Amino acid sequence: MYELGVVYRNIARADRAAADALAPFGSATVHEAMGRVGLLKPYMRPIYPGAQVSGTAVTVLLQPGDNWMMHVAAEQIRPGDIVVAAVTAECTDGYFGDLLATSFKARGARALVIDAGVRDVRTLHEMDFPVWSKAISAKGTIKATPGSVNIPIVCAGMLVTPGDVIVADDDGVVCVPAARAVQTLEAAQKREANETGKREIFASGVLGLDYYKMREGLAKAGLRYID
Amino acid sequence: MYELGVVYRNIARADRAAADALAPFGSATVHEAMGRVGLLKPYMRPIYPGAQVSGTAVTVLLQPGDNWMMHVAAEQIRPGDIVVAAVTAECTDGYFGDLLATSFKARGARALVIDAGVRDVRTLHEMDFPVWSKAISAKGTIKATPGSVNIPIVCAGMLVTPGDVIVADDDGVVCVPAARAVQTLEAAQKREANETGKREIFASGVLGLDYYKMREGLAKAGLRYID
Amino acid sequence: MYELGVVYRNIARADRAAADALAPFGSATVHEAMGRVGLLKPYMRPIYPGAQVSGTAVTVLLQPGDNWMMHVAAEQIRPGDIVVAAVTAECTDGYFGDLLATSFKARGARALVIDAGVRDVRTLHEMDFPVWSKAISAKGTIKATPGSVNIPIVCAGMLVTPGDVIVADDDGVVCVPAARAVQTLEAAQKREANETGKREIFASGVLGLDYYKMREGLAKAGLRYID
Amino acid sequence: MYELGVVYRNIARADRAAADALAPFGSATVHEAMGRVGLLKPYMRPIYPGAQVSGTAVTVLLQPGDNWMMHVAAEQIRPGDIVVAAVTAECTDGYFGDLLATSFKARGARALVIDAGVRDVRTLHEMDFPVWSKAISAKGTIKATPGSVNIPIVCAGMLVTPGDVIVADDDGVVCVPAARAVQTLEAAQKREANETGKREIFASGVLGLDYYKMREGLAKAGLRYID
Amino acid sequence: MYELGVVYRNIARADRAAADALAPFGSATVHEAMGRVGLLKPYMRPIYPGAQVSGTAVTVLLQPGDNWMMHVAAEQIRPGDIVVAAVTAECTDGYFGDLLATSFKARGARALVIDAGVRDVRTLHEMDFPVWSKAISAKGTIKATPGSVNIPIVCAGMLVTPGDVIVADDDGVVCVPAARAVQTLEAAQKREANETGKREIFASGVLGLDYYKMREGLAKAGLRYID
Amino acid sequence: MYELGVVYRNIARADRAAADALAPFGSATVHEAMGRVGLLKPYMRPIYPGAQVSGTAVTVLLQPGDNWMMHVAAEQIRPGDIVVAAVTAECTDGYFGDLLATSFKARGARALVIDAGVRDVRTLHEMDFPVWSKAISAKGTIKATPGSVNIPIVCAGMLVTPGDVIVADDDGVVCVPAARAVQTLEAAQKREANETGKREIFASGVLGLDYYKMREGLAKAGLRYID
Repeated sequence: MYELGVVYRNIARADRAAADALAPFGSATVHEAMGRVGLLKPYMRPIYPGAQVSGTAVTVLLQPGDNWMMHVAAEQIRPGDIVVAAVTAECTDGYFGDLLATSFKARGARALVIDAGVRDVRTLHEMDFPVWSKAISAKGTIKATPGSVNIPIVCAGMLVTPGDVIVADDDGVVCVPAARAVQTLEAAQKREANETGKREIFASGVLGLDYYKMREGLAKAGLRYID
Repeated sequence: MYELGVVYRNIARADRAAADALAPFGSATVHEAMGRVGLLKPYMRPIYPGAQVSGTAVTVLLQPGDNWMMHVAAEQIRPGDIVVAAVTAECTDGYFGDLLATSFKARGARALVIDAGVRDVRTLHEMDFPVWSKAISAKGTIKATPGSVNIPIVCAGMLVTPGDVIVADDDGVVCVPAARAVQTLEAAQKREANETGKREIFASGVLGLDYYKMREGLAKAGLRYID
Repeated sequence: MYELGVVYRNIARADRAAADALAPFGSATVHEAMGRVGLLKPYMRPIYPGAQVSGTAVTVLLQPGDNWMMHVAAEQIRPGDIVVAAVTAECTDGYFGDLLATSFKARGARALVIDAGVRDVRTLHEMDFPVWSKAISAKGTIKATPGSVNIPIVCAGMLVTPGDVIVADDDGVVCVPAARAVQTLEAAQKREANETGKREIFASGVLGLDYYKMREGLAKAGLRYID
Repeated sequence: MYELGVVYRNIARADRAAADALAPFGSATVHEAMGRVGLLKPYMRPIYPGAQVSGTAVTVLLQPGDNWMMHVAAEQIRPGDIVVAAVTAECTDGYFGDLLATSFKARGARALVIDAGVRDVRTLHEMDFPVWSKAISAKGTIKATPGSVNIPIVCAGMLVTPGDVIVADDDGVVCVPAARAVQTLEAAQKREANETGKREIFASGVLGLDYYKMREGLAKAGLRYID
Repeated sequence: MYELGVVYRNIARADRAAADALAPFGSATVHEAMGRVGLLKPYMRPIYPGAQVSGTAVTVLLQPGDNWMMHVAAEQIRPGDIVVAAVTAECTDGYFGDLLATSFKARGARALVIDAGVRDVRTLHEMDFPVWSKAISAKGTIKATPGSVNIPIVCAGMLVTPGDVIVADDDGVVCVPAARAVQTLEAAQKREANETGKREIFASGVLGLDYYKMREGLAKAGLRYID
Repeated sequence: MYELGVVYRNIARADRAAADALAPFGSATVHEAMGRVGLLKPYMRPIYPGAQVSGTAVTVLLQPGDNWMMHVAAEQIRPGDIVVAAVTAECTDGYFGDLLATSFKARGARALVIDAGVRDVRTLHEMDFPVWSKAISAKGTIKATPGSVNIPIVCAGMLVTPGDVIVADDDGVVCVPAARAVQTLEAAQKREANETGKREIFASGVLGLDYYKMREGLAKAGLRYID
């Protein structure tokens, strides 16, 4: 895989309304709604707590220690996009800081998801531009070797195709294939409707064992109670 | 070790007063009071800063990617307990979220210590239900294979027996065997009494070298000063 | 390397004005101003966000699980210093807590950078004494074997010579050799002056591609756009 | 991504002759011939040294701790295939041992590449059935939850599509997209022809600096020699 | 847990015949016979391939960077024992080399399992004294602080009680509680008898899908075949 | 630290006889003879077992993913040297293969020690050119940015100055400062003379407890025996 030195200008973004509507459900619910697939590895962490976003993926393949393609990617951003970046080798360098964030924000980007490092994290927080990354590092990068923009990439163990929906919050980052965005939204809505009232029930002391009728299944599976 | 498929309903909890009184000393002082043993590995981190708790352990042995036993454990919780969970293989999945936290809290649990992942961390913070874990992950789990509740488990490298006292804060998690709870509390109190006034002394500029009379020992150990 | 059992009392500290003036530039800008060298490995993280300091290094070489030399180091601190500590083997123990911090602060230290663990992190935050470390751990240490103070050490992969300037913030920790402090300050000032106005330009939607005139270089490097 | 519970029976395998002819070039040369892409992360190591293979990929997506799909995959193997396995979560369990190896071999498989663990490694060596894996572990697995066979998977950070060519040796594992197999073979052959004689030249003492005419470039890049 | 400064001289070793008879089954089969528990974490690796042993555990709790207790443990070894060592903190130092191995061998020890480092590995191989360890390191240790001998310890995540049976080979290390040694041997024998002939069957091309009659279960679980 | 873009042609190599004579003592004995300092981190492993070398260090500072300086370093090699390479950021790429090894060997180099990756490991073994590295990886490198040759570098956590003695074997890699080479050789010889006969004594069943007269010290330290 990985065609190098190309920028795809026209990508098929997921249904806009679905892409936008997924944010409030959060990564855990969306991941469940997807059938428990699509999650990036849990080493991807937000640089500050509390951000919760969804949007359509613009992908970038970077060379190690080289952030040239981030500038190329900026031009391909449209309002509502989230930039998703991978590197051709493992790298923790700080590929992204406040100037690029300003540029991305001006283009309408909602966040960055990068399987590498970022810097200027205090300023990024002040700017309210969330980033999910593998590392925080002051190490700068060069601009010497082309990668690609808007090709399918593997980011933190997950395949991300340009136009897919990204949902990210304090629990992690999920990728929803564009073709499944609407159906995933429906599944998430259904799942959430299902959960309504559960919290009150459990708060009243009802056990999941009883509410979910697990006792018989557990007994069948051989669980024994010993006094 | 590890008897699978059993739930021990009657466990000998540590002295309640001692278990409750250890929280304000914090994990560092309790660990010292224990003679520098009992600490879980430092990769166990709180999902939000500032929580400080102590309580008696209800233990859970989980299967990888399967949180069925968490529901079984909920029933065994009594007020003042802290649930301590281990997995039979390394796993970072999100075994625990806001619904289970609601249930645990309703039963009187003070916290969860889990050698795996949790999710819904923002809601858990809002609920003020602290968790110490190895990971944060949106990945959900199945309910298919029994583990055990209230057997001795190894959590983050430390043996935890049901009824032991758990002390946890921003510095980490310590396990105090039930039989040593009272004596550890006394040692912690003594240690803290000993520390009284030290901070003022050091703030005034007195050196530990002089206060602790270390200079002779250092010279004997061969330390040389070079101008 | 590593002479054990010695304390150098007289060290050549970097130019004081330069050492003090580097803090506001932050680790990322200083690292760039150095020509992209001098950064400690990115696993060195602040124990709380928001601190930003610079100062002159007092170095400590510690033995594993033994913080005796921290007390020896305290005496060598002068106002404006930052203590930089390494261990002769990998170790995550909590070498440093609130009492040592009180002592260090009383001597005029601004921060601690330690390639090991710290504890009492909540109190350190309340005291406003920042620490950059590899780990947080309640595990205490003994006082049995001498290391050294004010010898050149390797901390998180970087050589730190006593008197060098340390710059640390949320992005990481940089070491500036004493002899290069003034010149690095000038380079940082120049770099910052250069950046003035850039944020407004990028906020207005101008692309880095155009501002930095990258399009020709990218084309030469073979980048192709596909519609 | 990741459609669960499906088995694709008809996959487009890469050109057989090219797939077979790539083995002797080895992973390093093939990776270069690809333009330096396609390499699985270097944590993938052979369970014994000396094996060098190439073949067409049959892919398997496994559930954590569950090797049911390995049996399903066995049926889809044709002579000349290499099975490539990923797990939906990080796992080091031993998914594969001597019995499955016997079955795979009987179907004509040349090797297994698995982003998880294997066991019976001594027997696998005796059987001359090479495996590249993330771990070696005696831990067995259950057969409870379906994954998929012959869907595109991410294995050790690289996208592998069924039918792609896999080249593996002591240096690592490379994936060559089926559509590029012939062209990659030609590039590898060309590269190897190019290398002919070089070893003798360097053995005679000629420096790469001179042979590759690097001195001018280095001087332009600012390299200075100091006596 | 962890009583420091004690040596238990009389331990209840597992049934000798069962302890000795488990070796040829290997860690994978014994782990299965135990019901898939008892395995030490897979980072424990043999220092050379091919060794396969079983024996009764003499346990040692070591202090970080301090191998004093290894000498104390030597005296407690009886023929047929395997020494199992843990450290009170994470450590990779080389606690064990050719002289201690000579001593252990003279006492009748069959192997060492240590959650830390060893050295003199080439000589250990020549002496045919196998070690399973977390690391290989030339770093030596001091002899200053007592730990304990023959107390229950946690080694690589598993509780090991003195007298338990240890089974180790190229696939890893399993701990069988003394009380379950005979029953585990019987289960292992039964399992192996069960496997007889299977290899020939699979070598002939019969699939596990058919042999284990998995097709129906897979269909019920929803597996679909697509042409 | 780290002056970029310079090559020091004249370095003060350690005493040749001492540098050559240290090899047979091995890294563990030399590390002890140094007073237990000088060891590179234990993640540095030989690419094949059995090699044991010593020599004088030629140092190389590499840029991430760029092996240009390896060619520059080749010219600075003299017979009896060992090349020691560090990278300005963490990197596992394969910087070195059979052609560079041929060149290094032709110049008289005895080995490579590199805090990054190597490739062509099977050929390197056939050539009998030992390498100690952090990783094995088929990933190739570019030639674009200068680093330096023969400046002091930090390799795997240890400061290596050009001309220092490197001792490497299956237990790891030790750096002996040039100025201490002769004295370290003498200490190693004395240590080895001291060990003569010990192996026979321990083989006869004499315990270290008695031979080293540890019993009194252990009792004083509070060790208790319990029957």
